[in-house]
Amino acid sequence: MPVNRQVVLASRPDGEPVLQNFRLQQGAVAEPKDGEMLVRVRAISMEPAIRGWLDDNDKNYFEPLPVGGVMRALSIGQVIRSNLPGYAPGDYVRGLMGWEDYSIAGADTVLLQKVDIAEDMPLTHYVGALGGSGLTAIVGLDAIGRIKPGETVVISAAVGAVGHVAAQYARHKGCRVVGIVGSAGKAKVALEQVGYHAVVNYREAANLEQAIREACPEGVDVYYDNVGGPTLDAMLNNMKTFGRIICCGMISSYNRSDDPPPLYNMWQVVARELELKGFLLYSYGDRLPAALATNLEGIRAGWLKPIENKRVGIDQAAELFCELMSGRTTGKSVLEMDLPEQVG
Amino acid sequence: MPVNRQVVLASRPDGEPVLQNFRLQQGAVAEPKDGEMLVRVRAISMEPAIRGWLDDNDKNYFEPLPVGGVMRALSIGQVIRSNLPGYAPGDYVRGLMGWEDYSIAGADTVLLQKVDIAEDMPLTHYVGALGGSGLTAIVGLDAIGRIKPGETVVISAAVGAVGHVAAQYARHKGCRVVGIVGSAGKAKVALEQVGYHAVVNYREAANLEQAIREACPEGVDVYYDNVGGPTLDAMLNNMKTFGRIICCGMISSYNRSDDPPPLYNMWQVVARELELKGFLLYSYGDRLPAALATNLEGIRAGWLKPIENKRVGIDQAAELFCELMSGRTTGKSVLEMDLPEQVG
Repeated sequence: MPVNRQVVLASRPDGEPVLQNFRLQQGAVAEPKDGEMLVRVRAISMEPAIRGWLDDNDKNYFEPLPVGGVMRALSIGQVIRSNLPGYAPGDYVRGLMGWEDYSIAGADTVLLQKVDIAEDMPLTHYVGALGGSGLTAIVGLDAIGRIKPGETVVISAAVGAVGHVAAQYARHKGCRVVGIVGSAGKAKVALEQVGYHAVVNYREAANLEQAIREACPEGVDVYYDNVGGPTLDAMLNNMKTFGRIICCGMISSYNRSDDPPPLYNMWQVVARELELKGFLLYSYGDRLPAALATNLEGIRAGWLKPIENKRVGIDQAAELFCELMSGRTTGKSVLEMDLPEQVG
Repeated sequence: MPVNRQVVLASRPDGEPVLQNFRLQQGAVAEPKDGEMLVRVRAISMEPAIRGWLDDNDKNYFEPLPVGGVMRALSIGQVIRSNLPGYAPGDYVRGLMGWEDYSIAGADTVLLQKVDIAEDMPLTHYVGALGGSGLTAIVGLDAIGRIKPGETVVISAAVGAVGHVAAQYARHKGCRVVGIVGSAGKAKVALEQVGYHAVVNYREAANLEQAIREACPEGVDVYYDNVGGPTLDAMLNNMKTFGRIICCGMISSYNRSDDPPPLYNMWQVVARELELKGFLLYSYGDRLPAALATNLEGIRAGWLKPIENKRVGIDQAAELFCELMSGRTTGKSVLEMDLPEQVG
């Protein structure tokens, strides 16, 4: 009889999550009710945003996950049984599902959609460069950044899931692309694999604001902010007049939502007439098909080379998430599920 | 022989400006060169923005004023002699001129424009409700706030030069208008003279964020920010999803540009998908005629009642500016010049 392996929240993290905050348990495979379907989860997208759902406060855009509840993530899976019109066994679906072998999905599943898997693309790309993070990169640069050829674009978390796709797209569009990273190893990846024109290592810079100025002497048109905090602060003093800041994530706050790092340079928003705009992909549904087409084309044409930090097996899930939140990873962190016994 | 009384910067303020930072001196009346004109200054607009020009740093949008230099402000005056094509004696002009009886203006004078003074309007309104602050209120709410009937609009520095005009316009447009003020006296003015639907006194509130929540239980669509700092921070936690923040001024930073107050809640920009946009009227020239027409119509129709904090005489200039920067004033601070002997 098939079992359903699940990762649950054992306790709330205090700051950076640790393995002990999670527990692997076995449960029964649920039966889909009317309007539901049973999905075999194939790949799970590990994202910093998940960290926010683990705190018990009202500061986030989802309800807090209860202790003992099954961890959630944007995942891709294959329909096993369906009582939901329009979905049939064998279909690939993406949506907010559990960290588990078998998940129940329904019409109210967040971001549920059918996904066509191109034959020449690995499945994991559909929770990476062809999934939320990859499309976030494109939509952010287009809809909020409004990038133009010749502009200077700075990207923080430069070799992260969003950053490394954003950089390749901005470069493809004719921008000068400067990355901000936190290690020499990442700087090397940024320059050699991703194709940044210049890189600033914020851990090595004696004065981050000055280091960015040296990398962008003419100022910055568009800042793709994935980190917030002191990096955003240093960027505010480096923007050109009418600069745009895509506020996509503030990972500097995620591990410490009750004690976020302060910002001091907001006056520059007035003085330089900056635009800061928060941005969750969920709100830009009409732009997703074009963004997907862009990245598919990019991978095939070679201007977009996705980087994946992949682990295999549900017993690796908690470790992968903790590694992600420690800031040590490069590219898109994705968990490929080991294949459980298939249900009926 | 006519003299030119001038107020110069005697020393740089350390924090809040004091009278000793300024000096009244007498000079000769200059002769306009080719392309210049001699203007008799009639009314001077006192604005918090001036404070920023007095610090010797690169954090502002104008060059720092040198010590010993004549203080500047947006002023309205009358042309005495003109060597500038298109301008004739008797014309009223507005532009960045000195705190002095007679100023030289030319084609490169910042914001120089001819002004038609309506017969039924006092001259001082043209540096107030019909000048920079009044038009800033309208353009900010229209171009950045994009206010709609039924929306909740919060305005800080609620009875200030910009705030009291913004409030009356937003109310006229069918919004619910909530003001943030710093004294019981201002709260009274806000409710009784300006017409705010509700007021929060940030000095009396034990918890500003909570006090705003009680005044705006449904959340805030548009925040007209004139102060920055802790008030902006409290507002970030009170915005509705997709809320817009008009970043018009950050007076909380002006007296302490090297030690601005920190912000902690920027994560809400992402979580609530907020838009913050800095805004200087200088960049919205195409919107000025319509905004002026709006406020003229408003004053005549009665829905806009300008409040002026007026003093008369150049020997009052420094005191008026210091009073403004102390945060004690209500309405638009304007200096009406006493009339010097007229030049030739």
